Amino acid sequence: MCDACGICGERRDLQLAGAGDITQVEAQIRQVVTGVLREVEMYGVNGLKERRAQIPVGVSARHVHVCQEDLEKLFGPGYMLTKERDLLQPGEFASKELVTLVGPDGKTMSRVRILGPLRSRTQVELARTDGIALGIKNLPMRRSGELRGAAPITLIGPRGSVYLPEAAMRSNRHIHMGPRDAERFGVKQNDVVQLRLGGQEGVTFHNVQIRIHETWKLVAHLDTDDANAAGIVCDLQAELIK
Amino acid sequence: MCDACGICGERRDLQLAGAGDITQVEAQIRQVVTGVLREVEMYGVNGLKERRAQIPVGVSARHVHVCQEDLEKLFGPGYMLTKERDLLQPGEFASKELVTLVGPDGKTMSRVRILGPLRSRTQVELARTDGIALGIKNLPMRRSGELRGAAPITLIGPRGSVYLPEAAMRSNRHIHMGPRDAERFGVKQNDVVQLRLGGQEGVTFHNVQIRIHETWKLVAHLDTDDANAAGIVCDLQAELIK
Repeated sequence: MCDACGICGERRDLQLAGAGDITQVEAQIRQVVTGVLREVEMYGVNGLKERRAQIPVGVSARHVHVCQEDLEKLFGPGYMLTKERDLLQPGEFASKELVTLVGPDGKTMSRVRILGPLRSRTQVELARTDGIALGIKNLPMRRSGELRGAAPITLIGPRGSVYLPEAAMRSNRHIHMGPRDAERFGVKQNDVVQLRLGGQEGVTFHNVQIRIHETWKLVAHLDTDDANAAGIVCDLQAELIK
Repeated sequence: MCDACGICGERRDLQLAGAGDITQVEAQIRQVVTGVLREVEMYGVNGLKERRAQIPVGVSARHVHVCQEDLEKLFGPGYMLTKERDLLQPGEFASKELVTLVGPDGKTMSRVRILGPLRSRTQVELARTDGIALGIKNLPMRRSGELRGAAPITLIGPRGSVYLPEAAMRSNRHIHMGPRDAERFGVKQNDVVQLRLGGQEGVTFHNVQIRIHETWKLVAHLDTDDANAAGIVCDLQAELIK
């Protein structure tokens, strides 16, 4: 399980190697070596020590945030989320609760995890690939919480379902950081920067939003489409470019 | 159906609108407008006329190239591919023939199309997302025809199956062009360039290989992971950056 975002492991099939599984061990070593080579490629051997604008990447798999009202419709009156594990940011957690998503033509996607704590409004964060699988044409990209124009979607839980006319979206690329990191990088709330990933499948992502909060730890959040395009997994370092 | 690469429509759910389907018409108009806005954003209204390094993008969905020997193992002795439709490049076509892929743990992916003409060696081109769905860890990126270190995969046809120890890969990003386009852009065979796509989900792809052939028409080939990361469909224009 990945520790950076805490939710990607299920999607990207990362697993700790069993002691006897040499293929797994090899794959993990290859991943570490690839990461180092990417950085050497980008900065040179001598440049590695002087990197300043390095951001760890967390890959966000599809997930759901729910409000109390929708949680009760899905899981029953008075229901509360059960913590499965903590996420990187203080207070945030992956819950044990899973829902099924249903798209406009009845295509379904099961076992999508709810992340806590509860929010004021339910929001379904998908990659564009997930949207296509659900039959959602042109999944809109939105900043978290800005759901005007988001796609309609149905959530199904063990005790009921809920239809949401504006809830499904592709989350915009963003970097979480605290005030001290913001000062170090010379950026402020809602600045738009670029994020460069090296290697054979290297990509520079544009339109990456800076999000600052007192308690946040430094992490760039990309969805699984961006991660798979760039051929990366969690914990790789990306370069912030202003 | 997309005319640029001829094979993406099935994957990306692009459809011509029926006369009465206003949602479809709206979605198509929105796509055209988005394309224009991307270009205005990148070049400015006055800059649109002077664009020089513009390349149309073709999105390649997963597909298979086969050799005669493997075709006969899958479809029977003496079998020949049936053309479904021509692709952009002269002589290349999407066939009617579909195979099922099986990954290392037995995960399957059905209805994967064979592209013609036959090649000297069978090659399975997947996006990283496809690789994950098939249980292939770390799908290697390769140039077309360079299969050393490609992943093992099994193909199943109506008359038999074939196990290939080195056949599945993620195709590297590349741009097809003829000699006159190469001269115009100032590039030569196997040069590595970048490809920039604008818009809200904008991305610059690095490590894009130039491939020149006398008869080739100009098109940049990205796979569905790259296309979904950048939020694009076929026929959008990308900017070549040297």
